[in-house]
Amino acid sequence: MSQAAMPGMSAPSTGGAGACPLCDSDAGALVWRGAKLRVIHAQEAGFPAFYRVIWADHVAEFSDLSPADRQHCMEAMTLVEQALREQLAPAKINLASLGNVVPHLHWHVIARYEWDSHFPAPVWAHPQRECDTARETLVAERLPALHALMRERLERWADLGEQ
Amino acid sequence: MSQAAMPGMSAPSTGGAGACPLCDSDAGALVWRGAKLRVIHAQEAGFPAFYRVIWADHVAEFSDLSPADRQHCMEAMTLVEQALREQLAPAKINLASLGNVVPHLHWHVIARYEWDSHFPAPVWAHPQRECDTARETLVAERLPALHALMRERLERWADLGEQ
Repeated sequence: MSQAAMPGMSAPSTGGAGACPLCDSDAGALVWRGAKLRVIHAQEAGFPAFYRVIWADHVAEFSDLSPADRQHCMEAMTLVEQALREQLAPAKINLASLGNVVPHLHWHVIARYEWDSHFPAPVWAHPQRECDTARETLVAERLPALHALMRERLERWADLGEQ
Repeated sequence: MSQAAMPGMSAPSTGGAGACPLCDSDAGALVWRGAKLRVIHAQEAGFPAFYRVIWADHVAEFSDLSPADRQHCMEAMTLVEQALREQLAPAKINLASLGNVVPHLHWHVIARYEWDSHFPAPVWAHPQRECDTARETLVAERLPALHALMRERLERWADLGEQ
């Protein structure tokens, strides 16, 4: 797998010195945006349920956040994880904050299946088998309902936080 | 890189049906153990500062924890991350909860350097270059002081939680 094709490994934007692709664009299909973070569907080939929770401010590390902001970020990740588990029943959820290429805090939240091209290896490792496009399509068909659930949960959570 | 040599991808213990290598052993060099989790130095070749925060109970997913336990786990990860940043000044910290092979909640906390064998790729991806054993040794020489700092911080934090 070339570096350019590796999930989350695309090169930073070349829009200018200091340009950050996570500051400059949504960097995926927007599912929900709150005051401090957004959730995007990352549309990574071979992984139909690959999401990112992207912190709005340009900070590099999780420990750059205040304790309250770390908890806020973790709660959003957890809501995304729970919605994935409920709607898609994956074999495993993978969570990761790497940011070696784009050092702007973002969490990968990925539903993994025993039939996916890399399982049980990480999505960044060497593939274990061919993609199963028929099964990927079945997952993709459930995404509109999944996104509606995510939005509802995240909106209710955000509203509670503002009281 | 073979699957057996991939960080965190070693096969589960064969001690019997249902055996879990993270229940059966420390699964690394113990740095600190609390009531709910432990911190180990994972001794993964090529990555001299590779740690795991391993939840004591055999649960698979982060969202299997209660909200209070998720916060407890996240605070421990953050203390480990902060100690790594302070003592080793890495280029980036990588955090990941995957568990596809061993579905017992554990967080990888990895100090990454621009000179390491895989940077900026994830540690599970294809290597980018040969290992730099001289620089790895320089990092390894700092680990005793790092572990002393981690223990001190984690112990103080655990004591505060019990008040």
